[in-house]
Amino acid sequence: MKTINVGLLGLGNIGTGTYKVLEMNRKQIESNAGVSIKITRILEKDVNRKRDITVSPDLFTQNPDDIFLDPSIDIVIELLGGIEPASSFMLRAMGNGKHVVTANKAAIAANFDAFMEAAKRNRVMFRFEASVGGGIPILNALTTALLANEYDEILGIVNGTTNYILTQMTEYGLDYEDVLKTAQEKGFAEADHTADVEGHDVANKLSILISLVFGVRVPPQEIPTAGITRITKEDIRLADQFGYKIKLLATARRIANQLECHVQPAFVPKDHPLASVNNEFNAIFVTGNAVDNLMFYGKGAGPLPTGSAVMGDVIEIAKAIAKGAAFDHYPEKAVKMLRYVGEGQNKYYVNMMVKDVPGVLGSISTTFGAYGIGIDSVLQLSRDLTENREVPLVFILHEVTRARLDEALDKIRSSKFASEIKSVIRVM
Amino acid sequence: MKTINVGLLGLGNIGTGTYKVLEMNRKQIESNAGVSIKITRILEKDVNRKRDITVSPDLFTQNPDDIFLDPSIDIVIELLGGIEPASSFMLRAMGNGKHVVTANKAAIAANFDAFMEAAKRNRVMFRFEASVGGGIPILNALTTALLANEYDEILGIVNGTTNYILTQMTEYGLDYEDVLKTAQEKGFAEADHTADVEGHDVANKLSILISLVFGVRVPPQEIPTAGITRITKEDIRLADQFGYKIKLLATARRIANQLECHVQPAFVPKDHPLASVNNEFNAIFVTGNAVDNLMFYGKGAGPLPTGSAVMGDVIEIAKAIAKGAAFDHYPEKAVKMLRYVGEGQNKYYVNMMVKDVPGVLGSISTTFGAYGIGIDSVLQLSRDLTENREVPLVFILHEVTRARLDEALDKIRSSKFASEIKSVIRVM
Repeated sequence: MKTINVGLLGLGNIGTGTYKVLEMNRKQIESNAGVSIKITRILEKDVNRKRDITVSPDLFTQNPDDIFLDPSIDIVIELLGGIEPASSFMLRAMGNGKHVVTANKAAIAANFDAFMEAAKRNRVMFRFEASVGGGIPILNALTTALLANEYDEILGIVNGTTNYILTQMTEYGLDYEDVLKTAQEKGFAEADHTADVEGHDVANKLSILISLVFGVRVPPQEIPTAGITRITKEDIRLADQFGYKIKLLATARRIANQLECHVQPAFVPKDHPLASVNNEFNAIFVTGNAVDNLMFYGKGAGPLPTGSAVMGDVIEIAKAIAKGAAFDHYPEKAVKMLRYVGEGQNKYYVNMMVKDVPGVLGSISTTFGAYGIGIDSVLQLSRDLTENREVPLVFILHEVTRARLDEALDKIRSSKFASEIKSVIRVM
Repeated sequence: MKTINVGLLGLGNIGTGTYKVLEMNRKQIESNAGVSIKITRILEKDVNRKRDITVSPDLFTQNPDDIFLDPSIDIVIELLGGIEPASSFMLRAMGNGKHVVTANKAAIAANFDAFMEAAKRNRVMFRFEASVGGGIPILNALTTALLANEYDEILGIVNGTTNYILTQMTEYGLDYEDVLKTAQEKGFAEADHTADVEGHDVANKLSILISLVFGVRVPPQEIPTAGITRITKEDIRLADQFGYKIKLLATARRIANQLECHVQPAFVPKDHPLASVNNEFNAIFVTGNAVDNLMFYGKGAGPLPTGSAVMGDVIEIAKAIAKGAAFDHYPEKAVKMLRYVGEGQNKYYVNMMVKDVPGVLGSISTTFGAYGIGIDSVLQLSRDLTENREVPLVFILHEVTRARLDEALDKIRSSKFASEIKSVIRVM
């Protein structure tokens, strides 16, 4: 059996998980790939870290060129994380004729075109299944079995930390800060959780999905992004009353030749399949013009699920090498070039505190009307009257741009009726 | 651009859907495949049937050899359905060097090994994504991106007709016969629905999944199979009380080196993702030793979703032809050869009518105990007392083989306490 040699960049959690998947399923993997797969070199400083795998100390190096310049190495797996030096390393690997597999969403979202060009120019394969949805084979499905579709929309719950926090807030009626603390204690949230809770991790993943699904590059920093830090248990309770659950959603949709996208918490109808995706699970919901609605559900993180996706990519490349066809076809630029227009129009939930005086509902409704904003539902409960005679007034509003909504809310805020706009959340 | 010529066997509902997917997404499909794709010949008697596509009459033939012996045809799509003549046609097509794509679950389940051998011998590709789960790209995922896993279990809701019937029975508290009638009027159930409601269609699909996932051939007629015709609205109501929904489930699981499988209605816990798969939707739930739990959800039937899967296979083959690598690697026989042992042990729900006399619960519980069957929960409601002083007594029992359970039930049936065993349904 032919042997495929692999160089591994990084033996942290995900690197260790990948190594473990190869070791525990080696017979199965090699029988399926039709070749023997051997990790022959590992770039890693921390040689002595306690890992529950046995790695020969000879494999470790601190010089990346020991991998890039080794002609016996066929595939480089990059699991360092972060944009640099990971991006430069991957480009250098491809420049030296290595196929590259990575789980690094930040690097791909930042340098998508450069990686694609390098893969094409060097006639090597570049794969990144693990970068979106962890173990869920969503990128493979979108780029192979579903290729006969024009995609209309993609919706994703693609961050396990925030989904865990929102699920716990919902199930136990807790506030954000309390759940975050527990999540950190249980290892579901990192000490530095900004990228998760502010939505930046999701924006990286959405940028990758948009590149593959719509053939348009929208860098993550251009995607309107909001996180979950301002969601309150009151928002979650009110969402429940209106028939929704709150999820942090990545959304991209094609409307004629325009592309809209955004990352933000959203009210998801309880009977939508995404509403039942709880805790650390992820799901990606896709609509194609032939296949209709599809959903892919699974573990979006963790060493073994991520290792499953990384090794799946390695097997695909190994099979292609064995067939003498380890290169990709790159389609011409998208047939219909979509124009990226920002977040577009959305329905919104607005929760405000108003004076409990006659005429308040009429005045605020009239203001929304004057800005062309329709009202879907209203909730005002006098039982919630505060001691300074204010009550919460909650609206679900019809489709409107966020800019237009903000104008109307400024007008309402400056009136004598409203004392505070407490929350504005998108409704799916 | 190179042209790939396709011969189509059958232009019924699915054939028309496939033709339509190619026409409506042609630019997208050809850009992705890197080749032009042309249907050049169609085997179909019914030339004049009204279809909402435009097909040149020149394409039709009634002689299959016009396709098999035409050297310009690269790929044959078989959409005739039924085991014969479809199976002979596909073998003949492969014998003549054609790649074959099919949606025909009955033919594949019946002749899996013959097709695989023919594809290997003739060095052609054989694909059948549409045969299980319609538009859901489950076979592709299992045979590519997830290959680094040892699979532990696969559970499927893979028949839309029966899932529609069970969902409607659940939502509206209706009996089987009433919903069946509506389903037929709405086109969700065929006039001849035996294969659907008796579980045979699901057994075909499970047989295919087992071949791919566990590398073992279990012909559909060897899979213990029960349908939904004996499910009552009372069963559904009681399931709800215990916290379950009833679904027709395909199940296969590996326990050490043994394979258990069966097709039968099952109590599915309400918080399991499969419990929310409603109406005509399908879902396949897979557990792998690296990836953990995954679920794939979507439309399991219909001309366009099925056409999406068929054309996805065509694109994959077209890309492989363009690369000069249109052949497959066939793994050696499964590393661990699993031994098929039937349906194994399961938990069961048993609903029986008993005399409302002292000692009845003790006597029946003692009988279960004597057969080594543990009791998980019991429900007896005296409010349900019938006029001849009988009450329903409902058990959820711990794992037991069906044979052992039937022995215990025979014993109970012959006692003076029980008048009727009304239902026995598996609990997941």
